[in-house]
Amino acid sequence: MRFNAFVMNTVSHLSPGLWRHPDDRTPDYTDLDYWIEIARIAESAYFDAVFIADVLGTYDVYGGDDREALRRGTQTPVGDPILAVSAMAAATEHVGFGITTNTEAEHPVPHARRFTTLDHLTKGRVGWNVVTGYLPSAERNMGRTTPLAHDERYDRADEYLEVAYKLWEGSWEDDAVVLDRERGVFADPDKVHHIGHHGEHFDVPGIHVSQPSPQRTPVVFQAGASPRGIAFAAGNAEAVFVAAPTAAVVADQVRRIRAAVTDAGRPADSVVIYAMATIVTAPTGEEARAKYEDYVAHSTTEGALALMSGWMGVDLSGYDLDQPLGDVQSNAVQSHLAAFQNRTASGDIWRIRDIAAWGAVGGVGPVMVGSPAEVADALQEFQETTGVDGFNCAQAIIPGTLEDIAEHVVPELQSRGVYPTSYTEGTLRHKLFGRGDRLPDSHRGSRYRVGGDLSTIDDSKRG
Amino acid sequence: MRFNAFVMNTVSHLSPGLWRHPDDRTPDYTDLDYWIEIARIAESAYFDAVFIADVLGTYDVYGGDDREALRRGTQTPVGDPILAVSAMAAATEHVGFGITTNTEAEHPVPHARRFTTLDHLTKGRVGWNVVTGYLPSAERNMGRTTPLAHDERYDRADEYLEVAYKLWEGSWEDDAVVLDRERGVFADPDKVHHIGHHGEHFDVPGIHVSQPSPQRTPVVFQAGASPRGIAFAAGNAEAVFVAAPTAAVVADQVRRIRAAVTDAGRPADSVVIYAMATIVTAPTGEEARAKYEDYVAHSTTEGALALMSGWMGVDLSGYDLDQPLGDVQSNAVQSHLAAFQNRTASGDIWRIRDIAAWGAVGGVGPVMVGSPAEVADALQEFQETTGVDGFNCAQAIIPGTLEDIAEHVVPELQSRGVYPTSYTEGTLRHKLFGRGDRLPDSHRGSRYRVGGDLSTIDDSKRG
Repeated sequence: MRFNAFVMNTVSHLSPGLWRHPDDRTPDYTDLDYWIEIARIAESAYFDAVFIADVLGTYDVYGGDDREALRRGTQTPVGDPILAVSAMAAATEHVGFGITTNTEAEHPVPHARRFTTLDHLTKGRVGWNVVTGYLPSAERNMGRTTPLAHDERYDRADEYLEVAYKLWEGSWEDDAVVLDRERGVFADPDKVHHIGHHGEHFDVPGIHVSQPSPQRTPVVFQAGASPRGIAFAAGNAEAVFVAAPTAAVVADQVRRIRAAVTDAGRPADSVVIYAMATIVTAPTGEEARAKYEDYVAHSTTEGALALMSGWMGVDLSGYDLDQPLGDVQSNAVQSHLAAFQNRTASGDIWRIRDIAAWGAVGGVGPVMVGSPAEVADALQEFQETTGVDGFNCAQAIIPGTLEDIAEHVVPELQSRGVYPTSYTEGTLRHKLFGRGDRLPDSHRGSRYRVGGDLSTIDDSKRG
Repeated sequence: MRFNAFVMNTVSHLSPGLWRHPDDRTPDYTDLDYWIEIARIAESAYFDAVFIADVLGTYDVYGGDDREALRRGTQTPVGDPILAVSAMAAATEHVGFGITTNTEAEHPVPHARRFTTLDHLTKGRVGWNVVTGYLPSAERNMGRTTPLAHDERYDRADEYLEVAYKLWEGSWEDDAVVLDRERGVFADPDKVHHIGHHGEHFDVPGIHVSQPSPQRTPVVFQAGASPRGIAFAAGNAEAVFVAAPTAAVVADQVRRIRAAVTDAGRPADSVVIYAMATIVTAPTGEEARAKYEDYVAHSTTEGALALMSGWMGVDLSGYDLDQPLGDVQSNAVQSHLAAFQNRTASGDIWRIRDIAAWGAVGGVGPVMVGSPAEVADALQEFQETTGVDGFNCAQAIIPGTLEDIAEHVVPELQSRGVYPTSYTEGTLRHKLFGRGDRLPDSHRGSRYRVGGDLSTIDDSKRG
C-alpha cells in the first residue's frame, strides 16, 4: 500500500472551513516552514509524494458569485503550486512532488523547461499532474469567454503532451553533454535535435533549451474518470487519482482504467492508481470518532456547499437545507447522489444538509475514522475491493492529519507487512516502478525518443 | 554603494567558456546546493539581491545556427530562473531575489499569482525584472513567426503591467482577510474587488486569486536604455540595470534615466541604478591580474563571438579574427565599437579578435581587476563619474568571483564607510528605499490601488 499527501496552496482544500480549527495551520500556507514541515512528515512516513492540487479561479457557482467561497475560504485564496517545491526538496531526500498544471495556462515550451528545471533541482523527484480544464472563472480571467468543449480540450492537451514529449525525450541525446574542458566543448551540437513540431495548436521548430533531467519526462499523473479522460490516461498516465465516495464506484473506475491501459498496449502494472481518502485516527476508536465530530463541528455549511456547487456546476444556494437532494434537477447532482446513497447501507433520503455535512470533511472521497487498527482494516478492505495501489490522503487539518497517519496508521500497516519500511533509492519513477528513471518503452512518450520513431523530428532546419 | 549578484540558470552567463576553469562550478547549475551557496555568499556580504537573468531561446546568429552556442555552452542550456528561489529563501533571511520573466511568455494572470506566491514564501524579498522581448529563436519556439515590432512590444508590456498592478494593488483591500474563526469568515467579500480589465491585449474581469503578499507588487526591475525602454522604466522601474563598457556611456544612460523618472513625476531617488561590472580581485594586484589572465585563457573565442553576435544581431563568423571591426557593416556593431573604443585611452584599431577577448570575461560591462584597494578605487570612481547607486556584479567563475568580492572587496569598502555593514529589517523594497513595503504613491502602480483612482476597477459584475 502506498500513500501520497494530497494538499493545495490554500486554506481548506477539501475540508471547507477547517481553517477555523485551533489545531489547523492551513492559514500559514503562505509560509515556507509550513511546506517544509509537510514534506518532512510525508518523508518520515515513506509517502510516495506530496501531491499539490491547483485551481486558477474561484468557486462562483454557489449564489452565482464568488462571495461565499471568499467568505468561507473555500479553496480561495490560492497560490501557485510549484514555487515551494525547491525548499521542500532541499529539506528532504526521497519524497516526490506531484505538481498540478493546466495545459491551457501556459505554452508548452516554457512549461517543459519548468519541469526539466525542477526535475534537475530535485534530482528526479517530480511528477506532473496534467489538468486540461479550468473553473469557468479561471477561463474568463484568462480571456476565454467561450469555454472549449470537453473533447476539444483533450485534443489540444494531446498535442500539448506531444510537444512536451518531443522536448523532453527527443531533443537531447543522452551523451549530448560532453563537458570536455580540454577542448572547450560543452555539448555536441550533432546530438541536440530540433524537434520540428508543426501542429494544429503549436508550432515549435527548435531545441529544448534545457539539458535532460534525471527522469526527462516527469512522472505523468492524471485524474478524471470521464471516457475521454480515461482514454487520455491510458496513453499518458503513470499515476492516476480517483476520487469517489464508495469502494463500488472506485472499483468500477479502476477496472475501466486498467482495461484502457492494457488496450493501449501497456502492461497493467504500468499505472499506479491512488484513491482519495481522508483518515481521521487516534490511539482509540472512541478518540478518533470524537476527533471527527470535532472536525465536522468546525466545518462551514456554506463553504462546503460552495465547493460542492462548483464541482457539480449547480447552484445549491436556492434550496432549503432540509430539501431532499432528489429535488435538484441536474444530471450531475443525480449521479453524485447515486454514489452517495451507495455509501450508506440505509436507504435514507439525502438532503442538501447531508451533502454539505458530507462534503465538509474530505470532499468526495471516503472518510475513514477509527483506531489505527480500524483504519488499517478499512484501508486494506478498500484496497482489496477496488484494486487500487494506494491512497491519496486528503487533510482534515494540517499538519494534524498527516501527523496522525504517520504516527498511528503507518506503523500499524508496517506491522501488518503491507506498507514500506524504507525508500528505494533513485528517482520518483524508479521508486514507483523499480525499472529505472525513464519512461518505459510501452509509454506513448517513448515514441518521441532520439533513436525511436523520429518521423516527427526534423533536423532539416539546422545549418 | 550596493551590490547585486548577477547570475543565470546556465553555464557561462557572461563569461563564455569559463565553465572550463577548474575552479568554476557553473556546470552544477542544476543542483540546489549550488543556488543555496550563491544566496548564502551574497547574504554574507550584504548584497541587495541575487539577480537571475534569463533567455528562453538559443544564440543562433553566429554561423546562422545554434551549433556554436551549444558547443561552447554560451547561455545554453538554460533553466527556468524562478524555481530555485524558495530553497535559497529558506537558507537565508535577508537577501532579495530579482527574477527575470518575459511579458510575452505567460498570461499576466498566472504570472501575477506566481509573484504573489513567491513574495509570500520569501516574506517580501522578491523583485521582478521585466523583459519585453525575446531572442528570435525563442519567438519561433513560441510559435511567433513575425516578431512584434520594438514599440509594439512595449505597448503590450504596458498593458501587461497595468493588469499586473490591478491584480496586485487593486483587488484585495488590506483588511480583506479577516480570519475570524468564531464566525467562520476567512475574507470579507466586500473588500475583494473584481478588477474589470478589458483592454486591447487582455481581458481580465475577475479578482486576483491570491491574497496580498508583503510587498503586493514585487520590486520592479528593468534593463534597457533605448528611448522606449527608458520611457517604460520611467513609469515602472524601481531598480534599473545598465550595462555598458565605459563610465562615459553609463553616465549618459544614468542622466537620461533619472531625467525620465523626474519627468514622470517621481522623485529622482525612487529608482536605484546598478551598473553591470565584473570584479576580479585577490590580496595583491599582481595576483589579481594573473587571475584575470588565467580566466581569459580559459574563455573560448567562438563562445564569446556567439554571444556578441546574438547581442548585436550580426553574424561575426564570416570575418577573419584579425579583420578590423570597422569592416563590419552594421549600425549595432558600429555603436558597440564606439563604446569599446572609448574604453581605452589609445586609438588602437579594434579587431574581431579583440571583441571576442573583451566579451570573454564580463560581457559588455567594465572589468575591474586589482587588489581590494584598487578595485574599491575603481568602483568609487565609476560611481562618482556615473551617478549609479551600485553594481550588478557579474561572475567570471562561480562561486569564486562572489567569494572574492565578499572576502576582499566588501571589507575594503566597509572600512571606507561606503558599504553596508548590516541589513535593514523588512522587505526588499524597504531595504532599498527605507520607506515601507509598498509601492510609493508616486509610482504608476499605486494608481490602481483600492481607494486610489479606481475608474478602471469595476465591481458591477459582482452579485
